[in-house]
Amino acid sequence: MIEQTGTIEQPGALEPSRTGILPSYLRDEWWTPDTGDDATPVLDASTGEVVTYLSTQGVDLAGAIAHARTVGQTSLGGLTFHQRALLLKQFGLALTARKEELYELSKRAGATVRDSLNDIDGGIGVLFTYSSKGRRELPNAQVYLDGPVESLSKDGSFLGRHVYTRLPGVAVQINAFNFPMWGALEKFAPAFLAGVPTIVKPASPTAYVAEAWVRILVETGLLPAGSLQLVSGAVPGLFEQLGLGDLVGFTGSASTAERLRAQAAPGLRFTSETDSINASVLGPDAVPGTPEFDAYVKQLMVELTTKAGQKCTAIRRAIVPSDAVAPLVEALRQKIAERVVVGDPHAESVTMGPLVSLAQRDEVLRAVGALEAAGGRIVLGTTDAPDVTQADGTTGPAGEGAFIGPILVGFDGEAASLPDAVHDVEAFGPVASVLAYRTVEEAADLVGRGGGSLVTSVATSDPGVAATLLARTAAYNGRLLFLDRDDARTSTGHGAPVPHLVHGGPGRAGGGEELGGIRAVLHHMQRTAVQGSPAMLTALTGVWHQGAASRSDRHPFRKSLAELAIGDQLASPSRAVTLDDIETFANFTGDRFYAHMDEEAAAANPFFPGRVAHGYLLVSWAAGLFVDPDPGPVLANYGLENLRFMTPVSPDDEIRVVLTAKQITPRETDDYGEVRWDAVILNQRDEIVATYDVLTLVAKTTESAAAAAGPVSAEAGA
Amino acid sequence: MIEQTGTIEQPGALEPSRTGILPSYLRDEWWTPDTGDDATPVLDASTGEVVTYLSTQGVDLAGAIAHARTVGQTSLGGLTFHQRALLLKQFGLALTARKEELYELSKRAGATVRDSLNDIDGGIGVLFTYSSKGRRELPNAQVYLDGPVESLSKDGSFLGRHVYTRLPGVAVQINAFNFPMWGALEKFAPAFLAGVPTIVKPASPTAYVAEAWVRILVETGLLPAGSLQLVSGAVPGLFEQLGLGDLVGFTGSASTAERLRAQAAPGLRFTSETDSINASVLGPDAVPGTPEFDAYVKQLMVELTTKAGQKCTAIRRAIVPSDAVAPLVEALRQKIAERVVVGDPHAESVTMGPLVSLAQRDEVLRAVGALEAAGGRIVLGTTDAPDVTQADGTTGPAGEGAFIGPILVGFDGEAASLPDAVHDVEAFGPVASVLAYRTVEEAADLVGRGGGSLVTSVATSDPGVAATLLARTAAYNGRLLFLDRDDARTSTGHGAPVPHLVHGGPGRAGGGEELGGIRAVLHHMQRTAVQGSPAMLTALTGVWHQGAASRSDRHPFRKSLAELAIGDQLASPSRAVTLDDIETFANFTGDRFYAHMDEEAAAANPFFPGRVAHGYLLVSWAAGLFVDPDPGPVLANYGLENLRFMTPVSPDDEIRVVLTAKQITPRETDDYGEVRWDAVILNQRDEIVATYDVLTLVAKTTESAAAAAGPVSAEAGA
Repeated sequence: MIEQTGTIEQPGALEPSRTGILPSYLRDEWWTPDTGDDATPVLDASTGEVVTYLSTQGVDLAGAIAHARTVGQTSLGGLTFHQRALLLKQFGLALTARKEELYELSKRAGATVRDSLNDIDGGIGVLFTYSSKGRRELPNAQVYLDGPVESLSKDGSFLGRHVYTRLPGVAVQINAFNFPMWGALEKFAPAFLAGVPTIVKPASPTAYVAEAWVRILVETGLLPAGSLQLVSGAVPGLFEQLGLGDLVGFTGSASTAERLRAQAAPGLRFTSETDSINASVLGPDAVPGTPEFDAYVKQLMVELTTKAGQKCTAIRRAIVPSDAVAPLVEALRQKIAERVVVGDPHAESVTMGPLVSLAQRDEVLRAVGALEAAGGRIVLGTTDAPDVTQADGTTGPAGEGAFIGPILVGFDGEAASLPDAVHDVEAFGPVASVLAYRTVEEAADLVGRGGGSLVTSVATSDPGVAATLLARTAAYNGRLLFLDRDDARTSTGHGAPVPHLVHGGPGRAGGGEELGGIRAVLHHMQRTAVQGSPAMLTALTGVWHQGAASRSDRHPFRKSLAELAIGDQLASPSRAVTLDDIETFANFTGDRFYAHMDEEAAAANPFFPGRVAHGYLLVSWAAGLFVDPDPGPVLANYGLENLRFMTPVSPDDEIRVVLTAKQITPRETDDYGEVRWDAVILNQRDEIVATYDVLTLVAKTTESAAAAAGPVSAEAGA
Repeated sequence: MIEQTGTIEQPGALEPSRTGILPSYLRDEWWTPDTGDDATPVLDASTGEVVTYLSTQGVDLAGAIAHARTVGQTSLGGLTFHQRALLLKQFGLALTARKEELYELSKRAGATVRDSLNDIDGGIGVLFTYSSKGRRELPNAQVYLDGPVESLSKDGSFLGRHVYTRLPGVAVQINAFNFPMWGALEKFAPAFLAGVPTIVKPASPTAYVAEAWVRILVETGLLPAGSLQLVSGAVPGLFEQLGLGDLVGFTGSASTAERLRAQAAPGLRFTSETDSINASVLGPDAVPGTPEFDAYVKQLMVELTTKAGQKCTAIRRAIVPSDAVAPLVEALRQKIAERVVVGDPHAESVTMGPLVSLAQRDEVLRAVGALEAAGGRIVLGTTDAPDVTQADGTTGPAGEGAFIGPILVGFDGEAASLPDAVHDVEAFGPVASVLAYRTVEEAADLVGRGGGSLVTSVATSDPGVAATLLARTAAYNGRLLFLDRDDARTSTGHGAPVPHLVHGGPGRAGGGEELGGIRAVLHHMQRTAVQGSPAMLTALTGVWHQGAASRSDRHPFRKSLAELAIGDQLASPSRAVTLDDIETFANFTGDRFYAHMDEEAAAANPFFPGRVAHGYLLVSWAAGLFVDPDPGPVLANYGLENLRFMTPVSPDDEIRVVLTAKQITPRETDDYGEVRWDAVILNQRDEIVATYDVLTLVAKTTESAAAAAGPVSAEAGA
């Protein structure tokens, strides 16, 4: 391994790290190069002052990667999903406590506090959501089971099952400048939960914000060794060192993504999330005066101005009925006049900051020029530098600040003959095009011509319009948002990915899938089909499989989690069901369905031989057969799943139940955990009457059962 | 569109199609080129006789692709998942009826009837499995919902949900020669079920077998227009015409896969399944004399000889404890001597045919040479051409037949110092290497050095050995098979992908995922996050969402499927639960759990305020509150799902239930269908006591309810 040259820094406050060269966090230590003679300055977006310098001269990337693959994999791999999830919560709390500092820092990159709600609060929100979902939707284990067991032999002795195990390498992030915190944390959280270490490579213009949140996490002292590293600058030769078992998550331009994808070694998982030419459709029913029209205008204003339009998800194409174009432009003009104040985010009144850099502003102006060259004309705003509100609240010229106001580019002509530039050219700033359509099908075709988008929104209250657009555009979009009078107030917005839902899109949008709850965790794992005998699958998955050995030493409900093992079983005695019982149950419950009460009518039903016992009678009796009445480790039955009635039970049939501990999930933060029991009701001919899973809460120890007292879980019950 | 030149053939018997140039099936017609002056012959593997000629001179590929994207998409898109699934069954039946013809034809490619069990019966099996899974695991609709609803606002007015919609393009298969039928049908079935048209491009040496099964499907008259096309020969310029919305499924060598992947346009889904250097590990416990040792030897023999070892999934590396190498080689030698007869598959006694062509034989011999050059030595078999059994049963020289016998190549030395060739060089024939290991960790590392495999099998009855290998090798494998005494007899085998489980593997194996039940269907669809109000999501998904409008005109159990609509609702009256009721229920069911019977003990439980009603009492009473007793369209309650108890019910609380039709799934082949009801039990404070789904079977019409009579469904019950 090549030793990196440079200096290991002692931990300190946030500010000093930005006086010289911005440090990297590598192999669990802060590092800066000894000679920063190639260092490049990063400038304040509003004033042009130097914020910090970037250089990674002499950095040992191979060492960082090796550290992740060994130390990071070992430390994360030793934790369960739930333990990792709890750490995410701690990280979220640590960042929340210091978010004012992060807001201040972000202003230098042009972000207003409202912008930081997306980046900083949004990033923290991702941590909390993954912490919660990780504990609710993943087992407290290291392997995730995908789908049910598949029986591959008639006698049940050969089974198949899909498991996810974590990739053995490192997740490298190559991030965009616009969301230095959210954009990194939305990749970090699922990777961390999966057990895969991360290396963050932030974009230059906002690298100091990334350095700040990494520093806060480091200072918690809770980061597992090697689980997070940061390279504050260039990463030469990175791709040559990555391969099977590693991931690269790239966010940025479509063209860079294609170039990097070509460099990826076979087996390297390369995903990208690129700026797409997202659309927003105004439905034909959403005429001026409707709540949908108002919601559409407001959303368009928000998307143009938040982050000064520097969002991969921003609206680039407003697709609007021909007659609505003029009213829309007018309404938007008014809304912008009322709401938008452009300036230095340090001034409180400012609602829209500068672009991140002068270079970025020039690129946006070039793109506007390309749209004009293709036949567009500016129908709202101007390319001239605006007068802006300065940090001290006064108004003055833009100066060295990268300011630009909202711009709408109109295109005349029929939908089919619009120039390609409308669907291809991205002005990554406060710029959108307005396109007219005549039919909903035409609007859908325009959406598709974007070649794959992160998101399309539709303002309509007409389900027919929505259904046509879903059918014709879903395959071209990672996300579709339907805005109507019911959700206009509560909508999270066109441009806001939420951690619960997939973020990414096909084609030009990069083809990646990020977020989406546990789906994103699984993208950091390998799905493998496992075949074997019931006993072997039980041993390998920690979940009992029908056919594996069982143990019937004493009543399993008398065992705490400390004593209980999967396979612990209770085989009940039999109990005969009489016609009297059926009638008693019918009278008690009020369920006098004819299949239980009327021999002739029941026999005419295709599924019953005659009167049969209620399904609910059977599961109620089964409980009577397996429940142990006295206080003990089993605290509550909180639910039941996958109940299927297989064979009807006639009067004088007998039933018995076999109950087997199937899965045990201790909670990290409580004195109890969940136990899932496999329940099978059989009749006197050993035919299967019903199968289901019984869900219980069980104390960790006999002592904790006795002492049980604590907050009532929302999901616990009778 | 360029008109293709050539001749449209009339449908005929199987044989004539192989006398001249092999026809293609394009735009729903048979086609052969007018001039076949570039036609290349395809030879019989055993005799070298000409079987057919291949040429696609003048073929209009663009027209075929356009036909799939328009006609094929329209015809398949008009069907539901269940309707497509039923067609798959019809196709399976048609092929079954003519499989003897297919066996005969396959013999010319070197396939014994046992080999054809994999290719022909295996291919038919895929159709039946997908037909069954399509109807059991997919809705009778065109959109698939992925995961539960996500509430994105506190008041429930803004929801998120993931839907899968079919890709709008074409699925192009580029297939390997070894499984001309299974290899195509395992891709066709999931594509067809998803609603995506297929174009099959078979490999030259066995293209006539592909032509034969396509012809049988065409002759059923049941193929939806444009849903299946066949190009019997070269596909020049194919990749230039494919893009976003299309898929390419390639099977073949890893190097070709990489070359093709680089040609793929952005947005084109390119998946590959390539020959990998699969491993089979003999566990340290599986010493000679154990059932696991015997199973291992038998499996190795089968993998070497089935399809003469021409399988992407065949064992290429036998990884064996040092002391077991010699006994293994000896046992395998004996097994081969007993069981293996090499020759022309037309002879009944033959158990192992030739390779598919002389070119293929030469390539295998070159690979064996490369293994020898890397330090290997042949410890079993020989590279000399064997004497073989001829079609007439006599024994003679191999002649123009592509024959080769089983070969085992041994390597000395420690695991870590084995040459790369062992893990890189694929001899695509009856050839495997034998590698020795000392520790299980070393064995696992050897598996991983294959750089990603389709499958690894392990013979062990020791769960510790299995767990170590799972943890260390799962991420390098698409499938892991654990062979032990319990499943040795019923195992489907190392080399046999099953439609229920994913086929494909990471890294060198191509990174693709085929089969795996519905998973493969979804690979032909786009996952899109949809956000909207409950009413809009209900309209778009056909599944009722909490918060959407409901209708309470008359009891929904009085409505047949023809009358019932999602959102139809019953809000029951309230009923008070007394302490007497709880005691009555306890005595009747035998469920005398202390939380119901002992005030003091119940109050000491962390989840209960004191004695509470049984959960089973609540759901039983709820049924009493919502059931309509008289014969009617609702035929049976066949199950219940996702029951969660949220709030305990104390004596003198009141409960009521709200039941809403959530999802309606008419069956294609029965007079009834499934209705899923959303059930919510509330108390007198409108707190949610319990939520669950009730699953019922409901008649399609009032008449069919009255006339209900038919085969009892296995899943129906009380």
